[in-house]
Amino acid sequence: MTRLTRRYRFAASHRLHAPGLTDEVNRELYGKCNNPWGHGHNYVVEISVTGAVEPKSGQLLNVTALDDVVHREVLNDFDHRDLNRDIAAFHDVVPTSENVAVEIRRRLATAWPAGFPELAGVRLWETKRNIFELTHEEQ
Amino acid sequence: MTRLTRRYRFAASHRLHAPGLTDEVNRELYGKCNNPWGHGHNYVVEISVTGAVEPKSGQLLNVTALDDVVHREVLNDFDHRDLNRDIAAFHDVVPTSENVAVEIRRRLATAWPAGFPELAGVRLWETKRNIFELTHEEQ
Amino acid sequence: MTRLTRRYRFAASHRLHAPGLTDEVNRELYGKCNNPWGHGHNYVVEISVTGAVEPKSGQLLNVTALDDVVHREVLNDFDHRDLNRDIAAFHDVVPTSENVAVEIRRRLATAWPAGFPELAGVRLWETKRNIFELTHEEQ
Amino acid sequence: MTRLTRRYRFAASHRLHAPGLTDEVNRELYGKCNNPWGHGHNYVVEISVTGAVEPKSGQLLNVTALDDVVHREVLNDFDHRDLNRDIAAFHDVVPTSENVAVEIRRRLATAWPAGFPELAGVRLWETKRNIFELTHEEQ
Amino acid sequence: MTRLTRRYRFAASHRLHAPGLTDEVNRELYGKCNNPWGHGHNYVVEISVTGAVEPKSGQLLNVTALDDVVHREVLNDFDHRDLNRDIAAFHDVVPTSENVAVEIRRRLATAWPAGFPELAGVRLWETKRNIFELTHEEQ
Amino acid sequence: MTRLTRRYRFAASHRLHAPGLTDEVNRELYGKCNNPWGHGHNYVVEISVTGAVEPKSGQLLNVTALDDVVHREVLNDFDHRDLNRDIAAFHDVVPTSENVAVEIRRRLATAWPAGFPELAGVRLWETKRNIFELTHEEQ
Repeated sequence: MTRLTRRYRFAASHRLHAPGLTDEVNRELYGKCNNPWGHGHNYVVEISVTGAVEPKSGQLLNVTALDDVVHREVLNDFDHRDLNRDIAAFHDVVPTSENVAVEIRRRLATAWPAGFPELAGVRLWETKRNIFELTHEEQ
Repeated sequence: MTRLTRRYRFAASHRLHAPGLTDEVNRELYGKCNNPWGHGHNYVVEISVTGAVEPKSGQLLNVTALDDVVHREVLNDFDHRDLNRDIAAFHDVVPTSENVAVEIRRRLATAWPAGFPELAGVRLWETKRNIFELTHEEQ
Repeated sequence: MTRLTRRYRFAASHRLHAPGLTDEVNRELYGKCNNPWGHGHNYVVEISVTGAVEPKSGQLLNVTALDDVVHREVLNDFDHRDLNRDIAAFHDVVPTSENVAVEIRRRLATAWPAGFPELAGVRLWETKRNIFELTHEEQ
Repeated sequence: MTRLTRRYRFAASHRLHAPGLTDEVNRELYGKCNNPWGHGHNYVVEISVTGAVEPKSGQLLNVTALDDVVHREVLNDFDHRDLNRDIAAFHDVVPTSENVAVEIRRRLATAWPAGFPELAGVRLWETKRNIFELTHEEQ
Repeated sequence: MTRLTRRYRFAASHRLHAPGLTDEVNRELYGKCNNPWGHGHNYVVEISVTGAVEPKSGQLLNVTALDDVVHREVLNDFDHRDLNRDIAAFHDVVPTSENVAVEIRRRLATAWPAGFPELAGVRLWETKRNIFELTHEEQ
Repeated sequence: MTRLTRRYRFAASHRLHAPGLTDEVNRELYGKCNNPWGHGHNYVVEISVTGAVEPKSGQLLNVTALDDVVHREVLNDFDHRDLNRDIAAFHDVVPTSENVAVEIRRRLATAWPAGFPELAGVRLWETKRNIFELTHEEQ
């Protein structure tokens, strides 16, 4: 069995402000990430798949086919967008990177093509210092 | 003579929308960078100074003193902010990286301490692929 | 227990063309990776070993000893070579990164010195965006 | 469940010289790492935590709270220091990266705040080529 | 005046073998880069333009327009190709990175659109350690 | 004319303590870089040469020949060493990166082989954030 990880990038803005908490608690909890007008990141998202290599092609999957799914389900909506306002899932859920990773996995899992190797992991880099990971075992 | 370059990072959002142009022209000109709610980046800014090394200290300048100026004049206002709305200079100037670099240099040049070596260059990385540079000769 | 990962680099060319498939299917399957004259990459290969630290030396293994094995078994043959023509294993197996990783592991496993900690993983970066991994559990 | 990894940096010097071995064996064992006056590295240390995201905040933990612990327990003592002489743990234990990672984990585990998600991994980069990892399962 | 640098990538193979030299001299001169079947790299090419920012758009040039030129004139021909055999310019000129950079600049200069800011520099990374640069002043 | 930059790495320790200043002034001036037992870095040094490409070889210079000079004159003495104690030049000159870059250039310039293209620049990365550069024009 083999694990293939492919990296994608998107640039987006967000603001951390939990709807169920007061303004004061939000400021304390999120600090500068709660600044009223938001801020942004160059996110990196790594999608990992695992499975057996197809003997004839010598490939786990066709990367172009994976790209199609990731662009259609995630990047077209997330890249050069404001996560709070452009993504319905974040209208009432705070777009922390933990939650952004969950939403990316949910979108991929829902649209995952039959015949694709298993979706094994989603890893989101908010910055070079903060990395969030959802692994298969932890789902 | 020696040139010292020091790197800083800030995360900010922006939207490219030129106030003097119609909505349609803005969409054509900036493409997805014109998306209504904006997006964001992990910017890297490199500040370069040049001059003669001070013989006793063996240093061009004290990096902590440079950090103080860059944080006070630039990062405190730019980091985790929306450039269009949080920075007065971008209320009527479009915050392209070209203009952001100019504003960073303007702020530093205005507050540049006497006795500091010359402010020789400002380089702004919007992403790993797009790098904008103002050099001394070009000022 | 500790896991040590050490990175090596090699520059090589390859062409994806499966011998058991027609030219047309090869073109469809591999796209530009099937271009007749091949192309190349700066590959990065990460070798991971796991085990208990030897108390006297405070080391999992002597990195120089690992380097000797990796150079002798892999890099001397792979670096600055054409994988399709210079590596016998790829005369009838298509040198996708999945298969290159398997061949690297096979060579290391065959020559693995007694007394070395366990060979726990082989990870191959074809580019910064495509990463292929064989882990111990998956063997 | 989610895994958050946060990266920290420290610059330190060390010398590999095992107290229980002769000078000659030390020279053979560690090569240039045994040079009498020592050398140094820009270390990168990655701390990973795993657990369930707190639904209200959408976060696994408050990163500022993690930073406080890592600075107080590790970086304040390790950054811009000589590991052999400034860290008591290395007065009679050789400060290989394997042992440095163990000492970092020991310090964090001892001071780990109640209510924090589980300390799941410590990964230490000595250079870009040598990476040492302690995972939860391997403790 | 501002300088914008944009990075592109291409994967290609090449073999260093100067047609005007004997096989023996070629082997001595290029070492393993002369291996008969060639090898390859993930090249990075940086294109720099300089000029005055257009006040209305706040941009030096439209990056999409630059991308069109670079893809059409360079990347479509160079990416996933063998430089020696797929690029006519290298049928009788050895495709060292010095010469590859010159050919890239020649192609861009020939097709450079009127109204574009000045083509100021071409920089080619063969690997992370070898960087070749042609600057405007040096043309 | 072409400019070739080649990157080298060395791991070394140093302590910033100017012999002509009191202990108190040293502490104030250098802060934690003055810590008594020193600290260290993974330095990166970039050597740039400029000149005309030799038409037959298509190369500015033979990189192996450059490597020989840099290893013999610099890396053999600097790598895995303590700059203050192992390098005579720093017995009475403080080994700031400004001064380390000057010493590297001095060593290379002294031993520069006849027939080599011009030594055009020395750039020293102390960390990813602090970069020191000596250019030809500034000598």
